[in-house]
Amino acid sequence: MDRNARLKEVVRAAKEHPVYREKFKEVHPEEVTLENLGELPLTTREEWVAYLKENPRPPAGASLMHLTPSPLMGWMPEYLSQEDLRYQTEALAEHYRRLGLTGKRVLVAFSYHVFAGGWLFHQALWRAGNLVFPHGPGEAARIAEIGQAYGFDVLVTNPSFALKVGQAGGRFALLLAGGEPFTSVPGFREKVEAVLGGVALDAYGTSELGIVAGERLEKDGLWEIPEMAVLEVLDPETLKPVPDGEKGELVVTALSRTLMPMVRFRTGDLAIAERREGLTVLPRGVFGRTDQMVKVKGVKLYPTELAPILGGFGLDPKGFQVVLERKLEGTDKLVLRLKAEKVPPGLMEAIQRATGLKVDEVELVGELEGGLVVDRRF
Amino acid sequence: MDRNARLKEVVRAAKEHPVYREKFKEVHPEEVTLENLGELPLTTREEWVAYLKENPRPPAGASLMHLTPSPLMGWMPEYLSQEDLRYQTEALAEHYRRLGLTGKRVLVAFSYHVFAGGWLFHQALWRAGNLVFPHGPGEAARIAEIGQAYGFDVLVTNPSFALKVGQAGGRFALLLAGGEPFTSVPGFREKVEAVLGGVALDAYGTSELGIVAGERLEKDGLWEIPEMAVLEVLDPETLKPVPDGEKGELVVTALSRTLMPMVRFRTGDLAIAERREGLTVLPRGVFGRTDQMVKVKGVKLYPTELAPILGGFGLDPKGFQVVLERKLEGTDKLVLRLKAEKVPPGLMEAIQRATGLKVDEVELVGELEGGLVVDRRF
Repeated sequence: MDRNARLKEVVRAAKEHPVYREKFKEVHPEEVTLENLGELPLTTREEWVAYLKENPRPPAGASLMHLTPSPLMGWMPEYLSQEDLRYQTEALAEHYRRLGLTGKRVLVAFSYHVFAGGWLFHQALWRAGNLVFPHGPGEAARIAEIGQAYGFDVLVTNPSFALKVGQAGGRFALLLAGGEPFTSVPGFREKVEAVLGGVALDAYGTSELGIVAGERLEKDGLWEIPEMAVLEVLDPETLKPVPDGEKGELVVTALSRTLMPMVRFRTGDLAIAERREGLTVLPRGVFGRTDQMVKVKGVKLYPTELAPILGGFGLDPKGFQVVLERKLEGTDKLVLRLKAEKVPPGLMEAIQRATGLKVDEVELVGELEGGLVVDRRF
Repeated sequence: MDRNARLKEVVRAAKEHPVYREKFKEVHPEEVTLENLGELPLTTREEWVAYLKENPRPPAGASLMHLTPSPLMGWMPEYLSQEDLRYQTEALAEHYRRLGLTGKRVLVAFSYHVFAGGWLFHQALWRAGNLVFPHGPGEAARIAEIGQAYGFDVLVTNPSFALKVGQAGGRFALLLAGGEPFTSVPGFREKVEAVLGGVALDAYGTSELGIVAGERLEKDGLWEIPEMAVLEVLDPETLKPVPDGEKGELVVTALSRTLMPMVRFRTGDLAIAERREGLTVLPRGVFGRTDQMVKVKGVKLYPTELAPILGGFGLDPKGFQVVLERKLEGTDKLVLRLKAEKVPPGLMEAIQRATGLKVDEVELVGELEGGLVVDRRF
């Protein structure tokens, strides 16, 4: 496929859309390429929410609607045109064909109701030539039984539910996971694979964007799906690209939608980019949020990044707080408050590896009060 | 479309299928037409269940699977090929286009999980050029709210849930109903239309067959959907066609499926046929079951037919029993045992009109014991 041609089409649609019209005034779609895409203005979820609050009704040409729970507006609607849906189905099918997924029996345990989740996987896997069974969420024991009775090869669901299916006796040669942190939680994949008896692959997507990155059988990071999106990782402060291997905010241009175009959409998700074979790869997946970044000792700390690390050490991923204090000599002091009875061996080293910061002090507590970050430095 | 050509295709597929192979030995698909279809052998749900119990795994070429609860085997699987699904989507879309359903906003409140219900409506309405929102079942108040906020025109669900949506404040210009007795229950449509503030249309289908009959805006019975099926009404004893206007068993040949061909499938449902404009119409819809037929005073009585009549009079549709006794002079005595405090005026006349039989005696009881029919004549 010609990604540049498709990109121009998406930018052309964006230029006509009220969310972009003003800021794309000087943009000439025919000149936009994968190389200079970074010169276009960024777009935030807040901009979309402001627009949709004023214009809740479906736009002309809308053919499929979903709603996503949104802290900003209750439910946020997403609309695809018939053409968008056709494009997306074929584009994502190509990704599954590359994974060798054709002629398989696939059970989808994401919801098809209200949310886009089930549809995204279903349509593409169907189109790639698989038998798809839209099971919907829940009922781990029934899924285990159906999997056996009808000989299903592939399970599509979030990894924690996959664990339950495995514990109920379900065995699947392949798990296509999504919907929650998976490979960014150390040890999680190994646990799921052991119980399901197969290979588990991660993917990343949102309802606004579709599925934009997925693992290969080599399990070497989340690869940009070239037909679906262009990925960038930017410094959330300077909004410039971070060097490969450095943390930043994942910014996505969806190639699959023109009715609600998503051009340089700031996901707020934390990732590291690498370039391989001309594609962007997220070697550590998506592992935190950028919107609560704090500077500690001159280093950018993304506290949510600690959640999957704690999870990997068997702790409650939400059971922590970062406390920042000023040492007498004026330098920052990083205190980690943990809802735990003891500090698991290796945890501090893992945090230092991930964040580049040494924790100065650990406080073990029974309860936590306040937000993720308590900043007492100023 | 050429229905005869499509019929030949379906019969050709059936001839190759294990369920039909033996009994279709002498059948020459190229000679089968709408006129001589009645010469082919009938097929029962029991035959399919026997086959599927032995062969539960999806057949080659299966691309979409659903399960239906089956008293005979727990869950009965249905399989469609990619081609079947494409054909069905387009065929049913044609039906909705004839209803003027294009460019509308449609909220589907049937389930998409496990069952075929939601899919059947969704795919066709989407293909006909409507915006479809796959809401799924339940949450009447949320549906009322979403209907208002996003300007939905059409609600797709079963009529009793539609009532709840209306009671929660939902207003829809059109209801596409299905899934339970509707227009066969006197007064039900009027009640639903009053509360929803729009027009309500009935449809008939099963998961094995798809949607095979639907109402027109004229509300003059369930019309055979020519692209989807061929309908017949047979005497359940002689298995010969009953004259137009007489009760019998609805037998359906689905034109929409070749992977699990349904040729002259005995639904066990009770209907009356009329011929209009070259199509079969079920003027009273589907209003009972044929499998509990008893002969009373030489007349075929289908006791389940009484359920929608009782419902229309505000009684519990399951709160009755037919008791048959022998009068001293040797003739049959028909006793209706009713779980009610009094006999609603007009009920006996309605029963006589529907069944052609006069109830000799009514017994009002608090509780019912035993089955639908208590036959004490022999």
